[in-house]
Amino acid sequence: MQTVTLTSPPSVLSCAAIGGKQEGQGPLGGYFDKIGEDSFFGEKTWEKAESAMQKTALHTALHKAGLKPKDIGFIFGGDLLNQCIGSAFALREFGIPYYGLYGACSTMGEGLALAALMVNAGYAKKAAAITSSHFCTAERQYRMPVPYGSQRPPTAQWTATAAGCTLLGDEGEGPYITHVCCGKVVDLGITDANNMGAAMAPAACDTLTALFRDTGTKPEDYDGIFTGDLGALGHRIVVEQMAKRGYDMGQRYQDCGMMLYDRDRQDMHMGASGCGCSAGVLNAFLLPQLREGKWKKIIFAPTGALLSPTSSFQGESIPGICHAAVIAAERG
Amino acid sequence: MQTVTLTSPPSVLSCAAIGGKQEGQGPLGGYFDKIGEDSFFGEKTWEKAESAMQKTALHTALHKAGLKPKDIGFIFGGDLLNQCIGSAFALREFGIPYYGLYGACSTMGEGLALAALMVNAGYAKKAAAITSSHFCTAERQYRMPVPYGSQRPPTAQWTATAAGCTLLGDEGEGPYITHVCCGKVVDLGITDANNMGAAMAPAACDTLTALFRDTGTKPEDYDGIFTGDLGALGHRIVVEQMAKRGYDMGQRYQDCGMMLYDRDRQDMHMGASGCGCSAGVLNAFLLPQLREGKWKKIIFAPTGALLSPTSSFQGESIPGICHAAVIAAERG
Repeated sequence: MQTVTLTSPPSVLSCAAIGGKQEGQGPLGGYFDKIGEDSFFGEKTWEKAESAMQKTALHTALHKAGLKPKDIGFIFGGDLLNQCIGSAFALREFGIPYYGLYGACSTMGEGLALAALMVNAGYAKKAAAITSSHFCTAERQYRMPVPYGSQRPPTAQWTATAAGCTLLGDEGEGPYITHVCCGKVVDLGITDANNMGAAMAPAACDTLTALFRDTGTKPEDYDGIFTGDLGALGHRIVVEQMAKRGYDMGQRYQDCGMMLYDRDRQDMHMGASGCGCSAGVLNAFLLPQLREGKWKKIIFAPTGALLSPTSSFQGESIPGICHAAVIAAERG
Repeated sequence: MQTVTLTSPPSVLSCAAIGGKQEGQGPLGGYFDKIGEDSFFGEKTWEKAESAMQKTALHTALHKAGLKPKDIGFIFGGDLLNQCIGSAFALREFGIPYYGLYGACSTMGEGLALAALMVNAGYAKKAAAITSSHFCTAERQYRMPVPYGSQRPPTAQWTATAAGCTLLGDEGEGPYITHVCCGKVVDLGITDANNMGAAMAPAACDTLTALFRDTGTKPEDYDGIFTGDLGALGHRIVVEQMAKRGYDMGQRYQDCGMMLYDRDRQDMHMGASGCGCSAGVLNAFLLPQLREGKWKKIIFAPTGALLSPTSSFQGESIPGICHAAVIAAERG
């Protein structure tokens, strides 16, 4: 079964979100733990800045939970940078056993799932998930160097400059991870690397359908359903495709990519993307809202596009993936 | 504790190794399931060739075990290519729930560990681990395009063109994964990207020391200890450093990077490297030898260098990691 029911649902011990200037000016800006003054976070390169955001996210989450690095059994992390250097260089000073991930923009969901599975199985009392993205590192790696000033098509999204970290434990006051659903690679043949939403939406539909099927639930059973970074176009595709499968996603369904920026005020085209988008929204907003009792049960389902510039140059289409977790205010 | 003792040790159901021409001409050539005629494996680009190797490895492993893709609960995979396209494009046709990894050349150990943890916890009856590397994709991504013909320093290693896949199950005739030890990021400041062995050796020492400590064992308790792709120089450093810590590694200690090629006959400098090196040696040679009763218990401890060309250009040193598994012919 694609979905695992966690029989001893791990609790969120703490979470932290770090954002850039644009993220600070968006509607969720006030919820971030820290907003950077500029895009460098005190470093000399953007790649080092991205690592610095992850370091700050982990330090902040540890501090909020009153924990030290040695208290964490395993950390699952990854990012969009080639060879995931954002995470590797961030984590080297902590000495926490590290499983490196590559899930593109689904990484927060993948890491959260694996950390929850480890704690639920008793392999560790505490585990962590971490990820990040940075507009300037992503632009120059995937598209054009930022100083180039190239124009972006209307279907394009804006890679979030943000990092998020969640600490889980076998004891705690919640919210709790009750189910995780591992995604499959889904590729319906979209080849436009400036239209990630359309490329990733089928993967979101695939994983959400599996989750509903495996748990015998439907959208109405959740107070909120949050996909990763599909943006406005991908969100619309998910609503349409899920309706065809008999699921009415309704108003409860939102996309993290549409929540991070004010689309009227901030010119981000279809919305936010990047590992930091869903990680920022989860750790700045969703988890605290659950803890404060705003919602009882949500689905967090970030999506990733598993392409590279090389695969696009070679004419390949864009495979997508979506990893989902059910997060509930109460354990049972 | 860094090491998890698997209370219901998962069994290897089958394994498969695919190699390139050079690997076929090496001392383990006869043990591979399939050797490619050229570097393209029927594809038009080297990146697609690397995916083709992974596909063939998974198909072969499934066939040997008499299984279909739907029988596999989860697959853990990754590779060295930017955004791990080797794995994503290989796996999209199988429809197996996929957790993408980035562990550089330690990926076979990381995937084997996570697949074993999932099966041991009962999250799936069967799980798989897969990885690959390709000399030509790695050279042009990390160093120079192959047709350039640039000279390689004597400390350099040769990225293996190979893929390996292991299928694990909750029942089976062994060999069995009895312990897994998750590595930490270790960085002692080596900055020479042509001397990976020296950069990764400290991580191997760190993980092996943790494994011996956590399990109360010593090198003499194992019939073989196989690090990933440290090559001749890294192997020597591990022997020296472990001796300082009171562990006599002895003749039982070998490095996969020194086993894949004939260093006298094939001019590979310090030996093999790449995810496919340890994956090839494990799945072509180590697991079958265990099944045939040659050894009772071994440690498989592949190492990874978590650098990227960008991190090196920015003057960063090379963080290393090592993920280890104890593999035994008998369950108890």
